[in-house]
Amino acid sequence: MAQLTKADFEDPAFSSATRGDTRQATLVEKHLMTIAEPPLVMKLDNGQKLGPITVAYEVFGEMNAARDNVVLVTHALTGDSHLAGKYHPSDQRLGWWDPMVGPGRSLDTDRFCVICTNCIGGCGGSTGPMSIDPRGSKVYAMRFPIVTIRDMVRVQYRALRHLGVQRLLTVVGGSMGGMQALEWAVSYPDFTDSSIPMATSAYLTPQQIAFNLVERKAIMNDPHWHGGDYYERGEYPKEGLALARMLGMITYQSDASMRAKFGRHIVGDDPQAILQQQEARFQVENYLYYQGDSLVDRFDANTYLIHTRAMDLHDIGRGYRSWQRALERIRGAMLVIGISSDMLFPTYQQKEMVQRVREVGRAQAFYEEIESPYGHDGFLLEFGQIGPIISAFLERVLAARQRAFSRKRPY
Amino acid sequence: MAQLTKADFEDPAFSSATRGDTRQATLVEKHLMTIAEPPLVMKLDNGQKLGPITVAYEVFGEMNAARDNVVLVTHALTGDSHLAGKYHPSDQRLGWWDPMVGPGRSLDTDRFCVICTNCIGGCGGSTGPMSIDPRGSKVYAMRFPIVTIRDMVRVQYRALRHLGVQRLLTVVGGSMGGMQALEWAVSYPDFTDSSIPMATSAYLTPQQIAFNLVERKAIMNDPHWHGGDYYERGEYPKEGLALARMLGMITYQSDASMRAKFGRHIVGDDPQAILQQQEARFQVENYLYYQGDSLVDRFDANTYLIHTRAMDLHDIGRGYRSWQRALERIRGAMLVIGISSDMLFPTYQQKEMVQRVREVGRAQAFYEEIESPYGHDGFLLEFGQIGPIISAFLERVLAARQRAFSRKRPY
Repeated sequence: MAQLTKADFEDPAFSSATRGDTRQATLVEKHLMTIAEPPLVMKLDNGQKLGPITVAYEVFGEMNAARDNVVLVTHALTGDSHLAGKYHPSDQRLGWWDPMVGPGRSLDTDRFCVICTNCIGGCGGSTGPMSIDPRGSKVYAMRFPIVTIRDMVRVQYRALRHLGVQRLLTVVGGSMGGMQALEWAVSYPDFTDSSIPMATSAYLTPQQIAFNLVERKAIMNDPHWHGGDYYERGEYPKEGLALARMLGMITYQSDASMRAKFGRHIVGDDPQAILQQQEARFQVENYLYYQGDSLVDRFDANTYLIHTRAMDLHDIGRGYRSWQRALERIRGAMLVIGISSDMLFPTYQQKEMVQRVREVGRAQAFYEEIESPYGHDGFLLEFGQIGPIISAFLERVLAARQRAFSRKRPY
Repeated sequence: MAQLTKADFEDPAFSSATRGDTRQATLVEKHLMTIAEPPLVMKLDNGQKLGPITVAYEVFGEMNAARDNVVLVTHALTGDSHLAGKYHPSDQRLGWWDPMVGPGRSLDTDRFCVICTNCIGGCGGSTGPMSIDPRGSKVYAMRFPIVTIRDMVRVQYRALRHLGVQRLLTVVGGSMGGMQALEWAVSYPDFTDSSIPMATSAYLTPQQIAFNLVERKAIMNDPHWHGGDYYERGEYPKEGLALARMLGMITYQSDASMRAKFGRHIVGDDPQAILQQQEARFQVENYLYYQGDSLVDRFDANTYLIHTRAMDLHDIGRGYRSWQRALERIRGAMLVIGISSDMLFPTYQQKEMVQRVREVGRAQAFYEEIESPYGHDGFLLEFGQIGPIISAFLERVLAARQRAFSRKRPY
């Protein structure tokens, strides 16, 4: 087998960077806003109050006069607000969903104003464990409150209102981003004309919680973690975060895609090395080491802990009688996208959401399954399939808006 | 939800202990033998020589005059030679496959002589990382040579010959034990009338190698591991081994079985605790912590490293032109058992073995799929299904022997 090329080792979240035409990429700027300033602090799901809250965000395209052409894109575990384009002409990397966003693309910035915010608890500029705790003068670290997906969405709602947004055309995201999209549809049905949860679920299952636990424990077992207080020590739980990422990467892929990509090939030319040297590696091992190390350079270990826990706590039924009852609140339209080979969020989880919304009959629910070998990561890779599906769905949503407008009544 | 009972936390490898009638359990003794004494040392797959080799083993039932009524049972990753019964009347635990072994049971000790050995590299009495390296006076630790499944089987073959065994009626095992059963059928076709590989594969896939890597890295990241030299330090990589086990346990179960067993239930009576306390746990988390801690008490971390690597190296095609060509060597009969919900060794892996043996046409190959929600662990739990299938298969093998005997020719 030929040695794998550098492209094979790209982080899926940034794979477009090596494929897209980066020369004419849109330049974008990361903005910061402050909301929930005392005394208007935000009450979290767990009862704690948090404020002020900084939100990092990026905007692509312009708001129309009615301020209702807004598409919110919600990011997954290791994502951030850098959805598309690049910050500087010399950047090698494009945003994590770049092929979807731009003039004439599925999220057409000639027509829509596309916004992406870094989630609360994140490490991409929003208030999180690396922020100063206003109760003292130290960073929060793991004293940052336990947050939920619903808390993330509350912050996003306030941020959008702060920007003057009147309505969301849609909110779209995959995995943890999909949980947020669903939470938006349930928490703010009158503000959200449609939602597009991808590769996600109405609640985390014990198997998903279990994988998250192992990933967190990998970090917490690292002697450099120091209970989260590593920022000022000049040490960092690199090995632990890398190990968490290695496990994550297995669950984001599939048996089939790994077989196709790596087989049983080993690194180097000596087939005996793997029998003789403890440090010899299969190609798949080399890939996972690379992926682990890559995340360490760009992501904070405490955010990994906080956001995986937020996912564990994701149960759209919290505060309602059940997850099924919560879905009764959804209005407008919902497009749920599943990926055939997703081992982490199997498609029955998306199908049961759609089935429930259809039973209720108050919203239109569509299900589209992407046939892909890429597993959970498919929502970051299968642009050729996802793009047209989302474009067609948005035309439906716009048409429904037009009909509602003609009838001169609200949605 | 009611709190889980102690039985819910049992290690599947020992679950029979709480269910079987332990009062009349067979008493059994662990024996040790020494083979491969210099100069007759054993050459390993990697070219290194090893000897003397101690083999721990247990015997259930008696050999017949022809010494050909022998059933070899091969153990999985965290198993050992303690297949059935108990060592002392007061033992709370029975051997790991107890319901299968005994008078009138599927492996009927009134008719068969059932033998189980601890694999080389193990920590159950056979030569392994805790043994003294005869080249010096220190324990091997991670200086123990890299071993393969084929090396394990070579040692077993020598051990059986040492005991005077003339033929194996069958060799049966699941997971890593199944790899050994298959290796027996390929390496010693004239000694092995039949084989029963369960929940296993002809070669490890990159996904399986990847899970093993994360488990090993969990151990090696533990600061108490010390490159394997922890025996004399009074420290032990407990957290790392426990974490490895936690991940293993996820892959041995299934989404369905975990949903049924744990749901999203939390530990304790306060539903708010999980939102408010970092240390609050979901039931599934508590279970995994318990399983992790349990293994630490009975298993050696270096053996975990050595045996997961042996699995990675499992490719029945090594030394042949392909895995398919290797399977051409099999004679007699093979019963392959798969488990419908096995996520670690999906059933296509068992089916492709059977299909290949059928194509070759030199051995009879049977495939039986256990319908079970228990995932990979099914071979340690589904005695009610596996028992009758194995019994029926052994009657076929015995009948074939009888026919061959009547024709006065060897098999």
